[in-house]
Amino acid sequence: MDNQRTLTRSQSSRLVALDWGTSSLRAYLVDANGTVLDRRAWPHGIRKVTDGDFAGTLARAIDGWDAGLPRIACGMIGSRNGWVEAPYCDLPAGAQALARRLVTAVAGDGVPLAIVPGLRRVDARGDPDVMRGEETQLIGAAIEGRPDGVFVHPGTHSKWALMAAGEIRAFSTFMTGELHAALLGHTILGAFQQAAAASASAPTPASAAAAPDWQAFERGVTRAHACDDFTHALFTVRSRVLEADLSPASVPDYLSGLLIGEEFRGARAAGWLPEGAHVTLIGDERLTVRYARAMDLLDVSFAHGPADVVVPGLVAIARHARLIPDAGR
Amino acid sequence: MDNQRTLTRSQSSRLVALDWGTSSLRAYLVDANGTVLDRRAWPHGIRKVTDGDFAGTLARAIDGWDAGLPRIACGMIGSRNGWVEAPYCDLPAGAQALARRLVTAVAGDGVPLAIVPGLRRVDARGDPDVMRGEETQLIGAAIEGRPDGVFVHPGTHSKWALMAAGEIRAFSTFMTGELHAALLGHTILGAFQQAAAASASAPTPASAAAAPDWQAFERGVTRAHACDDFTHALFTVRSRVLEADLSPASVPDYLSGLLIGEEFRGARAAGWLPEGAHVTLIGDERLTVRYARAMDLLDVSFAHGPADVVVPGLVAIARHARLIPDAGR
Repeated sequence: MDNQRTLTRSQSSRLVALDWGTSSLRAYLVDANGTVLDRRAWPHGIRKVTDGDFAGTLARAIDGWDAGLPRIACGMIGSRNGWVEAPYCDLPAGAQALARRLVTAVAGDGVPLAIVPGLRRVDARGDPDVMRGEETQLIGAAIEGRPDGVFVHPGTHSKWALMAAGEIRAFSTFMTGELHAALLGHTILGAFQQAAAASASAPTPASAAAAPDWQAFERGVTRAHACDDFTHALFTVRSRVLEADLSPASVPDYLSGLLIGEEFRGARAAGWLPEGAHVTLIGDERLTVRYARAMDLLDVSFAHGPADVVVPGLVAIARHARLIPDAGR
Repeated sequence: MDNQRTLTRSQSSRLVALDWGTSSLRAYLVDANGTVLDRRAWPHGIRKVTDGDFAGTLARAIDGWDAGLPRIACGMIGSRNGWVEAPYCDLPAGAQALARRLVTAVAGDGVPLAIVPGLRRVDARGDPDVMRGEETQLIGAAIEGRPDGVFVHPGTHSKWALMAAGEIRAFSTFMTGELHAALLGHTILGAFQQAAAASASAPTPASAAAAPDWQAFERGVTRAHACDDFTHALFTVRSRVLEADLSPASVPDYLSGLLIGEEFRGARAAGWLPEGAHVTLIGDERLTVRYARAMDLLDVSFAHGPADVVVPGLVAIARHARLIPDAGR
């Protein structure tokens, strides 16, 4: 049986696709059509590979899969602190442009690993911005769903991207998730968490308690979106608790709403939501459910994008790089 | 000699005035005119008084001063986590109103300590705000300098106050200092500090390296004040360093400028800087020098207020409470 299974798999598997970020390594065994035959998740993001042994980490992650398959990876593995730095690629950028800018690391078994570069952008104001990993998901989402429009990918560093014909034309980053964690963990706004121990262990909106306090969340969204004094609005989280206008247990969700509302206010001010704009929402469901709620409240037209978009993105880039044949062959 | 000195002092000293905050206790021995005869600073803010022994802490702080003098304190000593809670007082509030709302703690020697309440405000939008300690400094500043206008008191929680005839009529808090510390200490924006170790030990703008990078600071002020997308602007601190547009060593000052610029933008949006507004700047010189620089850059009319304003504030409140005679008697 084992032999039979290995034989079947070696007939169809064509690519090892890796989503290798700061805190996790997800490995996918893929066939020529982009279908996932096997998947594995490891906690060995680049932050955990402290000895620089990326080759050994990779070997353990894909142990038992067919030897010699082409390999491709996106994410922080291509950053300055990763395996080999893949310099940022300028806009516009689609699968074809990224395929031309792949860099290569060589694993212990001599098989190369192609690493997708991140993107850089300098906006009209002269502000630089960067992404690394989300570009592959955006390309995957454009292949699996709409190829055009505004895409929002919430996270530690929330990304807004303008896509056209499957290419990324512009993008902007908001520090929403990381601010939420820093404010709750390291300012007076987290002091109330002694009284709400269950929520205190939640460093980000993603891992907040199972049932969010949607009323508190929506109050936060509305407050931040209506007013242009964010660092004052943050302090009112504390004064609301002191005035018994907000319960300590609701602070994480109110603050999550305040930060997401501020993200939408800032994005609107920066021109991301012109009249008639339509947003496609992709990423972790624990976050997209919050962004969807905020957009309902703020009358922003949106739809949920496809799930699991990193593999189609990696497959598209691998095809353009001729690591695997074109679809249909 | 010692006897002589004690005799002179006991003839003139009339009040023990205390500025008792979260991280420090400052004690002043004051004569009937409000002149400081002796001063002491202790690190025993309320956070250090973990055993609840406020009476013993006070006895050690004023040991050797004339016994039986009236005592008055402002600051977090009157908070829920202090000695006795002094409930917040509503606006408008001047020395007279605060004198009517003093609460009393009784020390080990039986002498009472009058504690000044903090202030609460609910603005037209329904947002609550609070202060505790700054109200006494604002009253002192109005006595020693201008009695009217907009006062700015930078700090962990920066305070803007509207004064009229020596009374506080409105105020607003911005989380500027605490955000600076949390962002540098607990987000990716502080990661560059390994390359700028000297600045890495600086938790707030107040304790940044001796010679600030004023160019970086002013770039931050200008950037934040010009654009309405603060949580995006924060991320560009990182992208600027990655693009070699900002040196890692300049991150604390650039971020300080960004936060102070955002404070001024938010204050302007909330109506604190109407045409012709004039700001009086009070508080710690290491911070006011930054706010002065920002106001020069942003064409805000301002003047430095008097220094050491907590004692005249406490003396004025003590007079209204008849803890000491009116001036001139």
